[in-house]
Amino acid sequence: MTGALSQEELEQYRSQGYLLRNSVFAPEEVDSLVAAAEALYRVDSPARTVERDGVTVRAVHACHTSSDVFAAVIKDPRMLLPAHQIVGTDSVYIHQSKINAKRALEGDVWQWHQDFTYWHWEDGMRAPNAVNLAILLDAATEFNGPLLLVPGSHRQGLMDPARRDSGAGPESWKNHLAADLEYTVQVKDLAELSEESGIFSATAPAGSVLLFDPQIVHGSGVNMSPIDRRMAIFSYNEVANLPVPPGDGRPKFLSSREAAPLELAAWTG
Amino acid sequence: MTGALSQEELEQYRSQGYLLRNSVFAPEEVDSLVAAAEALYRVDSPARTVERDGVTVRAVHACHTSSDVFAAVIKDPRMLLPAHQIVGTDSVYIHQSKINAKRALEGDVWQWHQDFTYWHWEDGMRAPNAVNLAILLDAATEFNGPLLLVPGSHRQGLMDPARRDSGAGPESWKNHLAADLEYTVQVKDLAELSEESGIFSATAPAGSVLLFDPQIVHGSGVNMSPIDRRMAIFSYNEVANLPVPPGDGRPKFLSSREAAPLELAAWTG
Repeated sequence: MTGALSQEELEQYRSQGYLLRNSVFAPEEVDSLVAAAEALYRVDSPARTVERDGVTVRAVHACHTSSDVFAAVIKDPRMLLPAHQIVGTDSVYIHQSKINAKRALEGDVWQWHQDFTYWHWEDGMRAPNAVNLAILLDAATEFNGPLLLVPGSHRQGLMDPARRDSGAGPESWKNHLAADLEYTVQVKDLAELSEESGIFSATAPAGSVLLFDPQIVHGSGVNMSPIDRRMAIFSYNEVANLPVPPGDGRPKFLSSREAAPLELAAWTG
Repeated sequence: MTGALSQEELEQYRSQGYLLRNSVFAPEEVDSLVAAAEALYRVDSPARTVERDGVTVRAVHACHTSSDVFAAVIKDPRMLLPAHQIVGTDSVYIHQSKINAKRALEGDVWQWHQDFTYWHWEDGMRAPNAVNLAILLDAATEFNGPLLLVPGSHRQGLMDPARRDSGAGPESWKNHLAADLEYTVQVKDLAELSEESGIFSATAPAGSVLLFDPQIVHGSGVNMSPIDRRMAIFSYNEVANLPVPPGDGRPKFLSSREAAPLELAAWTG
């Protein structure tokens, strides 16, 4: 079944912590995903976050639970087979999904961070037996805030984050979604990690898929271009690795409680 | 005398609105400029601005009046000769100077704008008979928020800016120095202007000099790298074009009232 990673791709993923596959989805399929994303951006919901200006949509979470299109694309072999291969089992589900909007001129940064910091400490996920698959809904260029990654940084495991103390409070999870992230990578760690490996800029055509490790250090700058840079990210987790949240845990749209294994089903847009 | 632009360089400048000259200043000279810049960053003064966090230095203005080093470099033939050639007279002075800090991880955006919008409407400068010469104090890369320019956009003249109404008030000039600029280029104009010409990213080694037109559309993103991206910008204006400010005008550190023509004098760091 088409979609599976070659041995070489899998090795690159293991060694670098990411893999960029160009033009996995056809233009018509991308159009269909974009239309579904824009429909979700219009819906007022706690799962929708805005930029610092209080108006511009920043992201919508849990799109795989609120849209038929995204519910279908996550089962497509081009998504699910690589997830199976990387996690090492056919028994995976979506821990979190989101569609970042990165609007033209308004789309703000995602500071450098490791996803697993949040999944481990906030959600109670034990091991990083998970993988992110991001579908580029627009071409990513050097001008529109492409995802940046530090190659090999996933091998460091979780680092001590720089912590912006935003207080505990019942809604402290809001600081995991804003331009001022609660846990970020310290500048000295970024300097050390990137000194040899440099930084990889995931620029690619729309429809490309970026796979990246839950522990890889990544972030993105602002969108200085006149065109939106939208991206849908799906975090596949091993069913046996379902988090046990401390206390009530974060809202379901950030940390799924449903761990039914996904069944393969081809999607054609 | 070394420093003058070739005919070809001058033509490129006229047609594109900018010219990037690599490694004009030697590493030791750059060290000397950096030391002078860091000394100014430490001085609390109204000419020093900070980022949204209220702490990180964003820029220091009028460095040519407060530092012997910067007072000297502006007369060096590598700076002053090209200014003479572009402005078309030997009688030029510094209208404005600043050293942007663009600190590692903290350095924020400069939204797309045209300098002449501010010089004309706020300072009362009649014609754009002026030129910016920027010295890169650190290498500019795709990761640290290099200056971005829209080639040829200076030929449009002043465009209708998107205006963030920050009220009049005696200190409204503060909104000309912050990440939320008062006058910016509208997204539709940026889209139209860049459609054919694209966007030019001024990446170059430290010590390079970027010359750009007062009317060219330019801006810069955030600094996602672990290293500062400092840049000193000097705006040379024709003496005969000394602004006549409406009312009191902006502070002297933004709009010089001194228009004595600069005399050539070689600087050696």
